[in-house]
Amino acid sequence: MRAVDIIEKKRDGHKLNEAEINFIFQGYLDGEIPEYQISSFLMAVYFRGLDERELNAFTKTMMNSGDLVEFDGIHKFLVDKHSTGGVGDKTTIALAPLLAAFDIGTAKLSGKGLGHTGGTIDKLESIPGFIFPVSRDELIAQVNETGIGIMGYSENIVPLDKKLYSLRDVTATVSSIPLIASSIMSKKLAVYADAIILDVKVGAGAFMKTKKEAKELAHTMINIGKSFDRKIIVHLSDMSEPLGMAIGNSLEVIEAIETLKGNGPVKFSNLIKEICGTALYLRGDVKSIQEGAEKTSSMMKSGAPLTKLKAFIKACGGNENVVDDYSLLPKADYSFKVKSSEKGYVKSIDAEMVGKSAMILGAGRATKEDSIDYSVGVVLAKKVGDIVETGETIATFYYNDSAKLDDAVKMLKSSFEFDDEKIETKEIILETIK
Amino acid sequence: MRAVDIIEKKRDGHKLNEAEINFIFQGYLDGEIPEYQISSFLMAVYFRGLDERELNAFTKTMMNSGDLVEFDGIHKFLVDKHSTGGVGDKTTIALAPLLAAFDIGTAKLSGKGLGHTGGTIDKLESIPGFIFPVSRDELIAQVNETGIGIMGYSENIVPLDKKLYSLRDVTATVSSIPLIASSIMSKKLAVYADAIILDVKVGAGAFMKTKKEAKELAHTMINIGKSFDRKIIVHLSDMSEPLGMAIGNSLEVIEAIETLKGNGPVKFSNLIKEICGTALYLRGDVKSIQEGAEKTSSMMKSGAPLTKLKAFIKACGGNENVVDDYSLLPKADYSFKVKSSEKGYVKSIDAEMVGKSAMILGAGRATKEDSIDYSVGVVLAKKVGDIVETGETIATFYYNDSAKLDDAVKMLKSSFEFDDEKIETKEIILETIK
Repeated sequence: MRAVDIIEKKRDGHKLNEAEINFIFQGYLDGEIPEYQISSFLMAVYFRGLDERELNAFTKTMMNSGDLVEFDGIHKFLVDKHSTGGVGDKTTIALAPLLAAFDIGTAKLSGKGLGHTGGTIDKLESIPGFIFPVSRDELIAQVNETGIGIMGYSENIVPLDKKLYSLRDVTATVSSIPLIASSIMSKKLAVYADAIILDVKVGAGAFMKTKKEAKELAHTMINIGKSFDRKIIVHLSDMSEPLGMAIGNSLEVIEAIETLKGNGPVKFSNLIKEICGTALYLRGDVKSIQEGAEKTSSMMKSGAPLTKLKAFIKACGGNENVVDDYSLLPKADYSFKVKSSEKGYVKSIDAEMVGKSAMILGAGRATKEDSIDYSVGVVLAKKVGDIVETGETIATFYYNDSAKLDDAVKMLKSSFEFDDEKIETKEIILETIK
Repeated sequence: MRAVDIIEKKRDGHKLNEAEINFIFQGYLDGEIPEYQISSFLMAVYFRGLDERELNAFTKTMMNSGDLVEFDGIHKFLVDKHSTGGVGDKTTIALAPLLAAFDIGTAKLSGKGLGHTGGTIDKLESIPGFIFPVSRDELIAQVNETGIGIMGYSENIVPLDKKLYSLRDVTATVSSIPLIASSIMSKKLAVYADAIILDVKVGAGAFMKTKKEAKELAHTMINIGKSFDRKIIVHLSDMSEPLGMAIGNSLEVIEAIETLKGNGPVKFSNLIKEICGTALYLRGDVKSIQEGAEKTSSMMKSGAPLTKLKAFIKACGGNENVVDDYSLLPKADYSFKVKSSEKGYVKSIDAEMVGKSAMILGAGRATKEDSIDYSVGVVLAKKVGDIVETGETIATFYYNDSAKLDDAVKMLKSSFEFDDEKIETKEIILETIK
């Protein structure tokens, strides 16, 4: 078997068999096939795609390229919720306690965030004393005890994806639906969960620019998931603005807690209820996601999820009193209200730009070596559909170092787009695909 | 400017400007852009093509990547005839003396052959005493004196093509019309000639499998040539069998001389006349290629081309008496007549396979380090359209080492395809494109 023949076969639109797929990708992982052959192969895949059988073979090679994480010691229905990235995404922090209240387990490997704000790991580490488990046994014990276990990614989960991604990134082969689907799914499949719920963001600021693309990605991932015997549902959610009002680590922890208290932003609260409802539906508790979302609403009112969150924080050595007293969380020294210089109805808020405005104040890392200031960030005062008068506050920055404030304010202002006409707002979940 | 953005632009079907084309290819030549980016770019080009402006910019970068060879000291109309490769191609040896007889100059850089038989250089070196000029001044003096000058390729003609070609070869990006066109034309443009005549071989054994592809390549090369102010005509010629009867270095020299004496194989003789006629047409001597071919016929009968050939051989230190006495050329010790085990009309002869049968006897190099046995090769006794009886001789091998003879015979036999029906033979030139 020669790599060049496999490239040619794909280039000419022929189907590859499992042995050929494995030869090329395993060969790449093993350093036997050079990058220049893989990159031309990936470009051929960009144009020709991968059919279901090819994609399953590829995903299998990806999945098996590193450790497979099973949670044999956990006696709970495990749900893995994954979002394709979004600014202000504190979903896990609010969702996991809700699931735990229903005795659904969260056993998650999460990465340190690189970008606008930290990852879930960073956000939770803003809680004083909070330390993540470092071994799988510890994680399993924690899930059994509290229903929630989150730990940092081992370096050896789907190493092929890391290697491929860094090559795709510089060879214009990132935006290929089958390659994206396999990248996401191989990581989901390598770490066991009974059900996978994916939240694919759609919009100008998101990876998937159009609903059509997002649907294609959703169907592709569902096919992969089903062929690996996983229960799977994909939500397409709107990303014409950041998720919720708060962007910044401790600010997002507060917003997640407020949501569990029933005081969260409407759209974010709806998203949490829909996803938890989806988990109940996938476990077979309810006949529809809608019914599951209604059960979730009642559960939120019971206060049980807050108790679960406290138990989780305590189990990780954190101060669980933060749930009742936010002053225990890191707090920035200064705040600054951003006033609108325009008026009209908010048409969209560029989430990426808002995220960058928080990042330059210290909320996120530009490089792996950067440290995060947990206390800083921005809280929006206006969202899409709201009417804004000139001079009205549209957001508040929380910061410690004023050097970058002017830039952050400029970015924040430029992220808002106004319209003279009243805006019809969208539901947060645009479509659900089973 | 970033390579990844240029790859993406091409991938998405947008047009690149001259600066972008130059950035990516010059960057590759300079070692600043890695191979994995170039190979994904080339695959994008495979799918998206290059338009006329992009292709001219690319060809310019190619051409200027090494030395430009001008022949300021030559006061003749210079014609460069180039064929896209063929087995048994001794065109230059017969053509150059014909052109010289019309005072049309040949100043050619030729490569040592890698493959079935040697290149033009190797074929001529089978003449005892023959040594090629090693400097441009020597070459120019020779062209002025005899009308013919051929020397080995300097390493520095279009080095970018060498670098790209070896990458394309292993990344399934060879068979792209714009990349092929630019590869050929940049080399033609880097070494000056007043007119370029290209002979594109068409057929199962050739680079261009179909006439449609070959025409597209022809038009692409003509567009490049014209935009660089060159006179250019492309012939598409049939390659359903080897060119002429002889394959092997000294055997081909003999066939070329016989052709000048008027005793050459019909199709090969016709090809030579058409090409020489094309040169006369391009210089403006005649109103049509047909008229030029007729003038060439008369010139052949005059014997003047043989005189020119002798002068050329003598100028290179070779024994010009070989023209009258073939026994002065290297001669193999043994010969073997291959008898047909089938009967019928010859439908096709796989030129590549015939070439390989000669190569394994020593007529060509498999690697750069191999040495060539000038005396060995094969002379076909039958060509497409001929009727063959079982047991009739279809070819004669000339060899020194019998170890590989059996294999060569097997290859030769398998190269013949027979049909029960009478075969309509094609003209050697299928179409001429101006």
